[in-house]
Amino acid sequence: MDNNSIENSILKNINKPSDVKNLSDAELELLCTEIRQILVDTVASTGGHLASNLGTVELTVALHKMFNSPEDKIIWDVGHQAYAHKLLTGRRESFSTLRTEGGISGFVRPDESEHDSFYEGHAGTSVSQAAGVAAANAAKGSKNFAVAVVGDGSFGNGMVYEALDHAGSTKTRLIIILNDNEMSISENVGAMARYLAVVRAKPEYYRFKAGTEKALRKIPIVGKSLSNHIFKLKNTLKNIIYSSSFFEDLGFKYIGPVDGHDIGHLCDAMDSAKMVEKPVIIHINTMKGRGYDHAENSPEKFHGISKFDINTGEPVQTSGSYSAEFGKILCDFAAKDKRICAITAAMALGTGLEDFSKQYAERFYDVGIAEEHAVTFGSGLSAGGMLPVFAVYSTFLQRCTDQLIHDGALQRRKLIVAVDRAGFVGEDGETHQGLFDVSLMQSMPNTTVYSPATYNEMSKAFYNAFYKDKNLVVIRYPRGRMPADTEYADLCSADYEIIGNENAENAIVTYGRLFFNAAEALKLLNGGENVKIIKLNRIKPIPEKAVEAALACKNVFFFEEGMRGGGVGEKFGCELLLRGFGGRYKLTAVEDEFVAHASVESLMEKYSMSAAKMAAMIEKEAAI
Amino acid sequence: MDNNSIENSILKNINKPSDVKNLSDAELELLCTEIRQILVDTVASTGGHLASNLGTVELTVALHKMFNSPEDKIIWDVGHQAYAHKLLTGRRESFSTLRTEGGISGFVRPDESEHDSFYEGHAGTSVSQAAGVAAANAAKGSKNFAVAVVGDGSFGNGMVYEALDHAGSTKTRLIIILNDNEMSISENVGAMARYLAVVRAKPEYYRFKAGTEKALRKIPIVGKSLSNHIFKLKNTLKNIIYSSSFFEDLGFKYIGPVDGHDIGHLCDAMDSAKMVEKPVIIHINTMKGRGYDHAENSPEKFHGISKFDINTGEPVQTSGSYSAEFGKILCDFAAKDKRICAITAAMALGTGLEDFSKQYAERFYDVGIAEEHAVTFGSGLSAGGMLPVFAVYSTFLQRCTDQLIHDGALQRRKLIVAVDRAGFVGEDGETHQGLFDVSLMQSMPNTTVYSPATYNEMSKAFYNAFYKDKNLVVIRYPRGRMPADTEYADLCSADYEIIGNENAENAIVTYGRLFFNAAEALKLLNGGENVKIIKLNRIKPIPEKAVEAALACKNVFFFEEGMRGGGVGEKFGCELLLRGFGGRYKLTAVEDEFVAHASVESLMEKYSMSAAKMAAMIEKEAAI
Repeated sequence: MDNNSIENSILKNINKPSDVKNLSDAELELLCTEIRQILVDTVASTGGHLASNLGTVELTVALHKMFNSPEDKIIWDVGHQAYAHKLLTGRRESFSTLRTEGGISGFVRPDESEHDSFYEGHAGTSVSQAAGVAAANAAKGSKNFAVAVVGDGSFGNGMVYEALDHAGSTKTRLIIILNDNEMSISENVGAMARYLAVVRAKPEYYRFKAGTEKALRKIPIVGKSLSNHIFKLKNTLKNIIYSSSFFEDLGFKYIGPVDGHDIGHLCDAMDSAKMVEKPVIIHINTMKGRGYDHAENSPEKFHGISKFDINTGEPVQTSGSYSAEFGKILCDFAAKDKRICAITAAMALGTGLEDFSKQYAERFYDVGIAEEHAVTFGSGLSAGGMLPVFAVYSTFLQRCTDQLIHDGALQRRKLIVAVDRAGFVGEDGETHQGLFDVSLMQSMPNTTVYSPATYNEMSKAFYNAFYKDKNLVVIRYPRGRMPADTEYADLCSADYEIIGNENAENAIVTYGRLFFNAAEALKLLNGGENVKIIKLNRIKPIPEKAVEAALACKNVFFFEEGMRGGGVGEKFGCELLLRGFGGRYKLTAVEDEFVAHASVESLMEKYSMSAAKMAAMIEKEAAI
Repeated sequence: MDNNSIENSILKNINKPSDVKNLSDAELELLCTEIRQILVDTVASTGGHLASNLGTVELTVALHKMFNSPEDKIIWDVGHQAYAHKLLTGRRESFSTLRTEGGISGFVRPDESEHDSFYEGHAGTSVSQAAGVAAANAAKGSKNFAVAVVGDGSFGNGMVYEALDHAGSTKTRLIIILNDNEMSISENVGAMARYLAVVRAKPEYYRFKAGTEKALRKIPIVGKSLSNHIFKLKNTLKNIIYSSSFFEDLGFKYIGPVDGHDIGHLCDAMDSAKMVEKPVIIHINTMKGRGYDHAENSPEKFHGISKFDINTGEPVQTSGSYSAEFGKILCDFAAKDKRICAITAAMALGTGLEDFSKQYAERFYDVGIAEEHAVTFGSGLSAGGMLPVFAVYSTFLQRCTDQLIHDGALQRRKLIVAVDRAGFVGEDGETHQGLFDVSLMQSMPNTTVYSPATYNEMSKAFYNAFYKDKNLVVIRYPRGRMPADTEYADLCSADYEIIGNENAENAIVTYGRLFFNAAEALKLLNGGENVKIIKLNRIKPIPEKAVEAALACKNVFFFEEGMRGGGVGEKFGCELLLRGFGGRYKLTAVEDEFVAHASVESLMEKYSMSAAKMAAMIEKEAAI
């Protein structure tokens, strides 16, 4: 099925969000069905965040019915659940380009639409942003609203609390929609998740009753089917507002729980919220199954399908990847050493820790979306005699920079950080690229950083981390997998390695998976007899001999899959200069810009890091 | 009065913390009095955190009576309230060297004593650390306790909530002492502070009654006196445990409020906590006056004395400093532009914002110790059309690195950060040095960073930030004040400046206050005719012409008051090399280590950045 087969009798007439205001209840329900059809249809071909977006269809429609965007600012936490919002705000035509290079982003972006309030991608920012907008409105005497939509998973994140603590003591026109889809419920349930479960279970008036209600018309998708029945809620009791002492204690008016799939109830709750003279939290329940009838009929099957990262929402395919390899390595070491334990910030699947979490449940800690706590908790485990490994995506490592310095490096105790998704990540774009971690770690004393290319090097780096290196040790590796056909899979350098003619006058210096591009470039240069590759494995501190190996060269070409500012390439250049290097130095890295969504291959090409681009540069500059 | 005049009949026999276990109630009370005497006496001569330490005397004694350090780990949040702990753990003799170079630190440090569990200095880390220790104990089957002591001010910090959210769902032997001294109560009270005030006011059984009780013997100090009466609590009701739904909702057993100056009550509460099979929060009230009788008699006078930063506890003397200058500059701009507003994370006084907070109360936001929220809240203010300035110490800027990237630079909206205490800070030592901010910002796209030396340059940088530059703009300046006698006070470069002979073959490149040392070095070199100073004001991006000015030199000497790794010096060297620089390059910065406490002058000397060291290096290396 493609878009043409969908009638879109309602959606085709929605050109701006205010167009939903004039629709009848029946039309609103039909609109939701049409939106779901497009979501399923598009994501089936482009990939993306289906589950979270199917869950927020009615919410999105209700928001645009009850508020006036862009004067009222609707702020989507993390920003991956705003597909319906995109469809209602002038991006219906371009929606089929979702997540493709030059097409629309999978996240909200102000440069796409005035209805996107902020660039979003990391969890827990929306309450702060909305509090700021609401404060600005108050300062300007504006009566506009700021509305944050934030998932329950983010309620374990410290930023959300900081924002609640601050905003709860104000009188601003701030409305927080707590989108409770039970995402944070897992074996390692956090206290907040448990608390929400209690609140949610209290009054059942607005609860979506999975056993008796069907949400969607049947839509074929990847061999499966969706229900084609629109929501017909049997519960006709009028809205009743329940209070929660927890949020009331923090100064908020609490409304909820509200059935997040009932537009009428949602609108009533928003209407109530608009009349309150202080910040409001509307607690809505959305269904974990999000309207798939097969999910209701086969919950086990559904649970299998629903395995995705709660930060990114993306399905996880770790088999054969660096992530999977990490998981295996860690299990192997843990089998022999009872001190080894693992920490994740709600990313057990994405970081390859699922097996570990089962095999060594008593040494596995999922702390929720709380990277700051994760590091410092690890510091505590280390003080208690354990060997903790915190596995985290590069982009989320940014969240715990101070903790790495103050609670990691400064403590002079063993703490290991496994950094996944280091380098280009591709379609998720600007907010998710793993391009900052290396620069952020450059200034940290007592810190060792490895950036292996092969699985063997990964394993060796972990061995060193556990039993040779001291203090803070970081091992970073990219998304995806090692090239299947590489002849270098057996490489197992600890610090660095020279590939090619040691006495060559030209050197490529690089680290991580760019090594494979460099090796390929060597072939493109007819074997590159006068070119050697200085492959760094340990990038902090840089091995002295690796610098010396470049010192006698006429031309040194440094390639770095990361930000140039503060990166290894600038440091390496400076080290050469400090030693009186007399040759030429060329540095290729990501210059001072954020990197938009595109495939990793395309980004390698764009930023001149592909094998072909490497070879061409060396051919030109070194006249080979 | 000096230490010799104090009898110390009890304290002199305390050589290890377990020695307090055998003391009678009367002896324990006398011990507290003796400790207070030494605290007042020592801090009067060394400086330090008097108020917070006077408030935790009974708590410290009770902790060491009820727990077995170091098997049980006592973890002091921020670590500046542990003077009594130091006196009881073998550091009585060396206590007079407090905060002096080579002497004992004003913060806890494991290398000083096995009873110091972690290096501490930043707020909100202790609950995570204790949760980690408790988890390690559980994994090892140990029955030892982990006890975190954390002030109410830290309860607005996100890390604390992340830790509570995680730990509240465990069954570990974790005890959190919430030391509620009403520090966070201010005009901009946070929701948590307001909540605690309600809880605190509920049952009065354990409240310290300021009007009827005297705590201390009179001790002469700086012309003032302390009460010499020991605590005689009139309230003899037995301990009653009150519950708090807020903390109970998070999974904790709540005990409190407990009079934090009554050793018997404290011990009873700890005894109860040790018997609970899940994490416990003991909420203790300590007195804002902390036992000064003149504070009780003259509360206004006391409030004046009590003005200090709630993060560092140190008295604030901003007059004539960079901080004060910042405050004046901001008020001047704000008078002409209603969009300009200021944000602080509980540092209004320290950052020089006190006048602004009074003159422009409606545009002033104190968000509590919540640097992450502060940046993202500012991002929201910016989206709402304001011109926000977040003023923060360099060391605490580390806390919001991701927010600077994701909610600052990425948003392509104006956000200004004023970074105080950039560079060496002196006696506070490792945890408080402002040496990382420059490196952390190197990789941030869309970001302009100024590091002015003169007040005029500061003012110009803020003008540029408000009206010329785009996106994220950071202006950083050191603790203290501009040299009073400098002939360069009128310097007002926007980007960079050349001082001395433009055609000189030797160049000193530097930025910030090191410029004054460089200018002094020039004089020491008899005017330095063959030496010029390339003084950077804008350090990101580095002005192209400043690089060109160094390119023709034979010798370039870069001096940087910050970490070498990822700093401007490495970048500058690399930029020279990329342009084919053929001269020699020498880089002086802080190498890969944490910088211990010592005076700023002493640190300048130690790290070869004093005028004399600069001159000596140039004389030697450039044969001048």
